[in-house]
Amino acid sequence: MMGVAQSGFSLAEIAARLAGVLPLAVAGDATCRVTQAGALESAEPGQITFLANPKYRPYLKTTRASAVILTPAMVDELPSGMAALLTSNPYLCYAHVVAILNPSARKNPGVHPAATVEEGAIIPASCHVGAGAWVGAGAILGERVEIHANAMIGEKVEIGADSVIYPGVSIYPGCRIGARAIIHSGAVIGADGFGFAPEGGEGGWVKIAQTGSVVIGNDVEIGANTSIDRGAIADTVIGDGVKLDNQIQIGHNCVIGEHSVIAGCVGIAGSAKIGHHVALGGAAMILGHLVITPHTEISPGSMVMSSIQEPGKYTALYPLERHDSWLKNAALLRRLEQMAKRLGALERAQKTED
Amino acid sequence: MMGVAQSGFSLAEIAARLAGVLPLAVAGDATCRVTQAGALESAEPGQITFLANPKYRPYLKTTRASAVILTPAMVDELPSGMAALLTSNPYLCYAHVVAILNPSARKNPGVHPAATVEEGAIIPASCHVGAGAWVGAGAILGERVEIHANAMIGEKVEIGADSVIYPGVSIYPGCRIGARAIIHSGAVIGADGFGFAPEGGEGGWVKIAQTGSVVIGNDVEIGANTSIDRGAIADTVIGDGVKLDNQIQIGHNCVIGEHSVIAGCVGIAGSAKIGHHVALGGAAMILGHLVITPHTEISPGSMVMSSIQEPGKYTALYPLERHDSWLKNAALLRRLEQMAKRLGALERAQKTED
Amino acid sequence: MMGVAQSGFSLAEIAARLAGVLPLAVAGDATCRVTQAGALESAEPGQITFLANPKYRPYLKTTRASAVILTPAMVDELPSGMAALLTSNPYLCYAHVVAILNPSARKNPGVHPAATVEEGAIIPASCHVGAGAWVGAGAILGERVEIHANAMIGEKVEIGADSVIYPGVSIYPGCRIGARAIIHSGAVIGADGFGFAPEGGEGGWVKIAQTGSVVIGNDVEIGANTSIDRGAIADTVIGDGVKLDNQIQIGHNCVIGEHSVIAGCVGIAGSAKIGHHVALGGAAMILGHLVITPHTEISPGSMVMSSIQEPGKYTALYPLERHDSWLKNAALLRRLEQMAKRLGALERAQKTED
Repeated sequence: MMGVAQSGFSLAEIAARLAGVLPLAVAGDATCRVTQAGALESAEPGQITFLANPKYRPYLKTTRASAVILTPAMVDELPSGMAALLTSNPYLCYAHVVAILNPSARKNPGVHPAATVEEGAIIPASCHVGAGAWVGAGAILGERVEIHANAMIGEKVEIGADSVIYPGVSIYPGCRIGARAIIHSGAVIGADGFGFAPEGGEGGWVKIAQTGSVVIGNDVEIGANTSIDRGAIADTVIGDGVKLDNQIQIGHNCVIGEHSVIAGCVGIAGSAKIGHHVALGGAAMILGHLVITPHTEISPGSMVMSSIQEPGKYTALYPLERHDSWLKNAALLRRLEQMAKRLGALERAQKTED
Repeated sequence: MMGVAQSGFSLAEIAARLAGVLPLAVAGDATCRVTQAGALESAEPGQITFLANPKYRPYLKTTRASAVILTPAMVDELPSGMAALLTSNPYLCYAHVVAILNPSARKNPGVHPAATVEEGAIIPASCHVGAGAWVGAGAILGERVEIHANAMIGEKVEIGADSVIYPGVSIYPGCRIGARAIIHSGAVIGADGFGFAPEGGEGGWVKIAQTGSVVIGNDVEIGANTSIDRGAIADTVIGDGVKLDNQIQIGHNCVIGEHSVIAGCVGIAGSAKIGHHVALGGAAMILGHLVITPHTEISPGSMVMSSIQEPGKYTALYPLERHDSWLKNAALLRRLEQMAKRLGALERAQKTED
Repeated sequence: MMGVAQSGFSLAEIAARLAGVLPLAVAGDATCRVTQAGALESAEPGQITFLANPKYRPYLKTTRASAVILTPAMVDELPSGMAALLTSNPYLCYAHVVAILNPSARKNPGVHPAATVEEGAIIPASCHVGAGAWVGAGAILGERVEIHANAMIGEKVEIGADSVIYPGVSIYPGCRIGARAIIHSGAVIGADGFGFAPEGGEGGWVKIAQTGSVVIGNDVEIGANTSIDRGAIADTVIGDGVKLDNQIQIGHNCVIGEHSVIAGCVGIAGSAKIGHHVALGGAAMILGHLVITPHTEISPGSMVMSSIQEPGKYTALYPLERHDSWLKNAALLRRLEQMAKRLGALERAQKTED
């Protein structure tokens, strides 16, 4: 086979690559090669899959995958002839394996002739600036930063090494982004916060100049069409490792703690302080000026109206019903106070009888 | 009148144009010409209107429109002198008539000198590529596709014939769009799905490479600032004829069935399977991995937390109240379990008495 | 000190500047200079702060600010040596002072060589058109309008004097924007409204051409990634002084009255008429065709399902709970009708006994 490059990676090669990352053992044939990752139910021969949730255990017997990632405790259930990577955290291991099998395609270094770079911007030779991208005066890019087509980088913006700014992202002047950021198309970083003083009565609103900025830590991912407003006076701050999904709104002066994950369509009103390792479900809403303690979990669609001091899972959701029964039950909701009074009256009457 | 072009269309001409599309008869003066469409209440002479909802019947007497589209059953109510198109589906007919009266302005073929087309992109001569648009290497456009100003078409994207991509749309590499698509400004197709594995404890999140794509059928319309994520492994799939409004979020691996309509601000979490002919009201939310059966209707603002097997209309909405009474009733909601227990105690006490 | 420019402004200078704007008196040292504004708790020497909410009164003793804006009634509480501006509306005064201390940086006039201006567009010499911006044929800009990088201005769009269109904004053909507008990145003005007629049964949807436009008054601010659809027949209308936050969806034919404020993530379905001076909290939703009377306030996250005739504050929110108790209470919600019946039965039984 001399001279013929083999595709994919053997389990031994994968284990070697992840040696310093997470503890790993190979069970079965360590020369088993995999070229892609797949789900238990749909993986094909030549692919590697994972089993994290015990309830999917039955699929282990029927999967067509060539190898599987699972915990050492489950090694006895391996079908004969199937190779495995053994680890205490199969899903985490899977994430690393998918990355090895699918190295992200980096753009070639260089500034596209159809890009515009204003005076005083600092762009290392290792960076990519795509067609139609605009880099404002005084912006500073770290090594290997990619600014994709038509992205807009305002004056004096700073972006850390290895960050990828996808097509059409807009970053307002003066915002600072850490290293290894991934910012998806349509995201807007640093637009003015929503601050106005009422003239009162039939008058209008006077804009309060938004003089703060946005400061984003390292290893942050920001989804498509998400908006993060600049601070009114102080900065809006996104901590290291925060992951933001699509269509999220983060108001001015918010602080999001490290490694918090925020699902799509979430809204966080101004000046809220979200602790580290908080998880906000999709379309959850946080009112302004609230403080959410670390390791809190908010269910999807839930509106948070007061600060949360104690970690745990919180929910605020009207349960789905057939429309007919909803019509009846929802109408009664407005009479709940009255029902409570009637209940109290009955209880008092009964007491009198006793 | 020789040599003078008449504006608009006569009812006879409209009926002829729609002959193969839907059954239609003309009542009254078939030479009556109309130049524009309008609502019953506000239409002016020279315009054609429609009457679909019987409750608007009284407006028939007062409308200033020159012609009306209605069902044959209502022809007796036509004011004298008013012409009509008779059809079993007046609103559908109206849609076709508006299209005849307002042919969409197509952009001139050609690639604008300020556009950037990368190597290997295939762009038929019938296509329009606007100023500042970027078409990545290996992208393939069908006949008469319009790529408007500053739109971003990633590498190897495929777009079917007669599709219109409005200014500033971003389509990530490898996504496939069917024929006759209409994609509005700010829409983002194919950004990474939201997939991360937790390192656990006080650790962070490891990105799971999103190796799937987005596949969009024919005749799909996608609203402004809507996001559709690429699949994690398999593709995210949008069926033929699906209509998506603005500000919608569709997570990775979702499958949306044919002819479903999704109103603005809806969020659909990852891996949900929405059947065909489903209607999701504005700001409805669908949790991940759920299955929604065809012909289901979800009311606006309703959160769907479990799969729906039976078609019908479903709702989950807290009813609006004056804030004062809301304060009282909402507080009682949290004591509902206690109220139920008190009610049960009273019932048991009464039984004992009997 | 001759020849040395002093930074900031003295209170006397500020009072003079605001003489025609709002009634103002200086207490203490009118030569006290301030260079920036700050919050009571975090302001530093050389800064001016404000006290509007009496509950923050204690901070007056500890603030490091050099001057404060407050009501004449509180002047006795001024720490000795601290200067003050006295006014009946401290927050409004603060907004004006912040603007004086932070004059917005205007872009230099001129059309960037990397911009594209189509034939027949009218652009006064006082305007700025940034790199990659596209101005369509027949567009008309007022004096000093700024079109930032990569913004897209459709054919025949009109924009009033002193408006600022931030990078990446998309305005569809024929829309009209008033004077002094501020439109943030990612906003989309004038995409097609969501109008389709069903073919019925297993058929699809026929698009209803959207022939109206969007008309926006003077002094309107529009947040990042907000969408305003063009009308179906008539125009969508945004009144003077309206302030829209980020991620808002406004459907076709809506009319928003003067000086209404709409917080982030709000959705307003088609043809709704919102009165003047209405305040919609974040993520509030308004169904289509409703009428909301002037001076109404809708709480965040509340779905409005019927028109509101009487001004006041309205709310529709499920209260947040720990997930465990939510599970119990929410389940009972679906049995509310049954509970009401059981309550009624008990009451009838008791009456019989009496």
